[in-house]
Amino acid sequence: MTDFNRHPDSYHHWQLAIDGEVAHLRMNVDPEHAFRPGYELKLNSYDLGVDMELADAIQRLRFEHPGVKVVVVGSAQPRAFCAGANIGMLGASSHPFKVNFCKYTNETRLSLEDASQHSNLRSICAINAACAGGGYELALACDEIHLVNDNNSAVSLPEVPLLAVLPGTGGLTRLVDKRKVRRDRADVFCTMAEGLRGKKAKQWGLVDEIWPKSKFQDSVDVRARELAASMPAKAATGITLEPITHERDGNRYTYRHVEIEIDPEGRLATLTVRGPEGDQPQDGAGYERAGSSAWAIRCFREIDDALLQLRFDHEQIGLIVLKTRGDREALLAVENALQADRDHWLSNEILCLMARVLRRWDLNARSMYALVDAEACCAGAFFEMTIACDRVYALDDEQVRLAIGPLSAGALPMSHGMTRLANRFLADPEQAARLANEPRSYGAQEADEQGLVTFLLDPVDWDDEVRIALEERVSLSPDALTGMEASLRFGGAENCDSKIFGRLSAWQNWIFTRPNATGEEGALTRYGAPESARFDWRRT
Amino acid sequence: MTDFNRHPDSYHHWQLAIDGEVAHLRMNVDPEHAFRPGYELKLNSYDLGVDMELADAIQRLRFEHPGVKVVVVGSAQPRAFCAGANIGMLGASSHPFKVNFCKYTNETRLSLEDASQHSNLRSICAINAACAGGGYELALACDEIHLVNDNNSAVSLPEVPLLAVLPGTGGLTRLVDKRKVRRDRADVFCTMAEGLRGKKAKQWGLVDEIWPKSKFQDSVDVRARELAASMPAKAATGITLEPITHERDGNRYTYRHVEIEIDPEGRLATLTVRGPEGDQPQDGAGYERAGSSAWAIRCFREIDDALLQLRFDHEQIGLIVLKTRGDREALLAVENALQADRDHWLSNEILCLMARVLRRWDLNARSMYALVDAEACCAGAFFEMTIACDRVYALDDEQVRLAIGPLSAGALPMSHGMTRLANRFLADPEQAARLANEPRSYGAQEADEQGLVTFLLDPVDWDDEVRIALEERVSLSPDALTGMEASLRFGGAENCDSKIFGRLSAWQNWIFTRPNATGEEGALTRYGAPESARFDWRRT
Repeated sequence: MTDFNRHPDSYHHWQLAIDGEVAHLRMNVDPEHAFRPGYELKLNSYDLGVDMELADAIQRLRFEHPGVKVVVVGSAQPRAFCAGANIGMLGASSHPFKVNFCKYTNETRLSLEDASQHSNLRSICAINAACAGGGYELALACDEIHLVNDNNSAVSLPEVPLLAVLPGTGGLTRLVDKRKVRRDRADVFCTMAEGLRGKKAKQWGLVDEIWPKSKFQDSVDVRARELAASMPAKAATGITLEPITHERDGNRYTYRHVEIEIDPEGRLATLTVRGPEGDQPQDGAGYERAGSSAWAIRCFREIDDALLQLRFDHEQIGLIVLKTRGDREALLAVENALQADRDHWLSNEILCLMARVLRRWDLNARSMYALVDAEACCAGAFFEMTIACDRVYALDDEQVRLAIGPLSAGALPMSHGMTRLANRFLADPEQAARLANEPRSYGAQEADEQGLVTFLLDPVDWDDEVRIALEERVSLSPDALTGMEASLRFGGAENCDSKIFGRLSAWQNWIFTRPNATGEEGALTRYGAPESARFDWRRT
Repeated sequence: MTDFNRHPDSYHHWQLAIDGEVAHLRMNVDPEHAFRPGYELKLNSYDLGVDMELADAIQRLRFEHPGVKVVVVGSAQPRAFCAGANIGMLGASSHPFKVNFCKYTNETRLSLEDASQHSNLRSICAINAACAGGGYELALACDEIHLVNDNNSAVSLPEVPLLAVLPGTGGLTRLVDKRKVRRDRADVFCTMAEGLRGKKAKQWGLVDEIWPKSKFQDSVDVRARELAASMPAKAATGITLEPITHERDGNRYTYRHVEIEIDPEGRLATLTVRGPEGDQPQDGAGYERAGSSAWAIRCFREIDDALLQLRFDHEQIGLIVLKTRGDREALLAVENALQADRDHWLSNEILCLMARVLRRWDLNARSMYALVDAEACCAGAFFEMTIACDRVYALDDEQVRLAIGPLSAGALPMSHGMTRLANRFLADPEQAARLANEPRSYGAQEADEQGLVTFLLDPVDWDDEVRIALEERVSLSPDALTGMEASLRFGGAENCDSKIFGRLSAWQNWIFTRPNATGEEGALTRYGAPESARFDWRRT
């Protein structure tokens, strides 16, 4: 059972120091504290445990330290900024773990960009030494990259020449799509094991600033303070994020607002999410008083945790069945209060959290079916989770309602920037706009007529039809479903974020399975061994 | 040695009939004429040979029959429209062949859409019976889909449920991105082996019209004539496309304007393209008189053929080295004449051909390096081929010039709709616009300053540096390079076309290699066998 809770007091791999408006997040990976046995985390290389702490630190900066306007991501080790994902760990991991690991680290880096874009928390990467592979991919996720200009400090993406795999944590995509590095230079850079240093790295747009070693720390500090001064103030004090705990009883995980029930033989999991109960804060100031146990924060952090449990600890689960429970009006009241007070830093932060968790939901490499029955609380963000599913099964019953809330018009965008309604009604953008801009509640039949339901089932047929639908889905090839779902869930134009998951990850998935990388004679397998890799030279 | 020449007089699998403004292209696959031994082409299933005839027919309609405004794609077999790609063929093919086969069929379908978009040649798919998998993917590439409304005629994408692979010839992408089918319906449709018929197929947007069997032929004919009447006239008579021949002498293929020299040990091929010699037509009417032996037609058809030879017959070639030869001014004169007379149907058709061939060049799953030396004719479309390469090596010599021509501003778009200059200068769109809109010739050093060159090499170093660069490239993992190049070559927003190659094909590549599809117990391997497939249930 994986525990995703982390806290700065017990970080093994990062140092988080707050200095007024500037935070310093320094990587200092403890080689002995690998997430799994069997490899050593040398040279600030990382594994899942290291990245969990990074994700925690970014999240805490947003909620606990709203006074921080700039985070400087650096290294506490003089001889390495970061060597990237640990190669021994990758070589020893199963294919599903590798893919899930890369997805998680991608989501962590996107959360850093999200903080810059939506929370006015800018990031500066301060590269004091060698910065390779995933290390440079972390740098690429920062707003600015500063590099020491000496003979030892270089940025590199050596995956292709050294390991025969891709820089798959957004590296290739961010090079050309975010930093807009000229494609032929990107090609050269990605095939150079040693990477680039100093002036050339700056000239090619791989870094923003270079500094002599003697002036590096001061220059970065000056720039961080300057950048901080240019950002609006949010608040002096934040709220404390309590740990997310759950009880596990056999195949059931019980959180406060969330439950997972695993059916290992059926290869399916039922995820039940519950709306708010009791009084909820009316505005941002109220959330400041209530802290992280307020439903809107707690529930979505629990969903996030539940999704990660399913990803990492239940690889064989092919289908997640979504059930929503609770009081629709109470849920919509919470969303209306948050939306009305979005200018308050904490309301905004909560909405950003909800949006991130929903994007993680969209990106699940599992089939997802929503069941909207008489007890369902299919409203607001839970409505969004519902239509994010591959299919929506609704009961043809008077008690059933699907309620579009105030956040469906744009507060909870998908990875490619579209609303889920716009993505659903690509053929009829006016329908999407009308549903979003006049949010209201629909009965089951009306919802079906409006295109919100995949199958509207008679109560007499409900049990059988749902059972058959679930059985059919889990009988299909998991790989084919992953590729199919990834292709159908995201319509319309792609952007940098969605290209990372939709294009880069797909290529990476393939390359990770190839003998040239992971076969007995593959480059990833043989890295560090005396024999060099042997390749099947056929190009495809 | 694969011969890609086809001619309607000797088609085995298609019937092409011209009836005034409407052409009928009827699939009638000869089961005994498979492209390779070992499988039978039952039920209008297709293989590479069938698709070569289709590609030929579309090309000939454009050049030989400009009077045709609508092509009706149908079947001459009463019991099958098309069963899709032949499963026995797929099961028996190597991974590189499968990938190249799918890429070729994708390009063929895109050429049909290109004819509609750029040549006013509309297409109607007339589905008279079962239309499965690649058959429906062909339908998706047509402008309109008409279906017989009876119990036998259905459209389906049964790849996922039956074979554990993807509908990889654009099916998934065109469903949601071109036809904008609601994603949950697309999900249902893609997991139903039997597909959908009649009213439901129309209601879900899978087809445009349904007709009773008795009225089908007439209704399609009426619609075809109606559509033809709405299209502008181009010309009554076209030009005849002569066969593309080459001489092969060991490792050298010699065409009239093109040459390939294969170096099997070095795993590289040198592609030499030559500019026009002698008088060339001055306008569209001149091209009508000159016919298909004119340089602008012949040369690009030869390049197309050469690329296909490399793809299918030389899988181990990892790197294509581009050399351009000829008279830059003569080449630019040809392009200026074509561009000036673009309103003429044949000038337009030639420019479309050049654009398609350049897109096939962009999509090569091989590394591509351009050498611009003293003898180079790096001008116009050859300049486009040069900057389409992963790298440009230019000699620092007074005789070297890179000449941007009139077509770089938009006549030769990449798959994702951008010009190659805009794609190169994502960080500086003004630079891209300036270079394109004020086309002129640049000396080597100036071209380097303008960002058109990757490496400018001193004559003293040229031989050694180039040799080392080529050796280094072919030493890298072919798979990692394919994924890297696909990610770096196409920057910026994606569209339907580029998502087919960049996302769908990447997923397909992966899924084709998975044991669940192609392992001993995989679904593709076991299709038709008494035992059902066995899956590794882990989701990734």
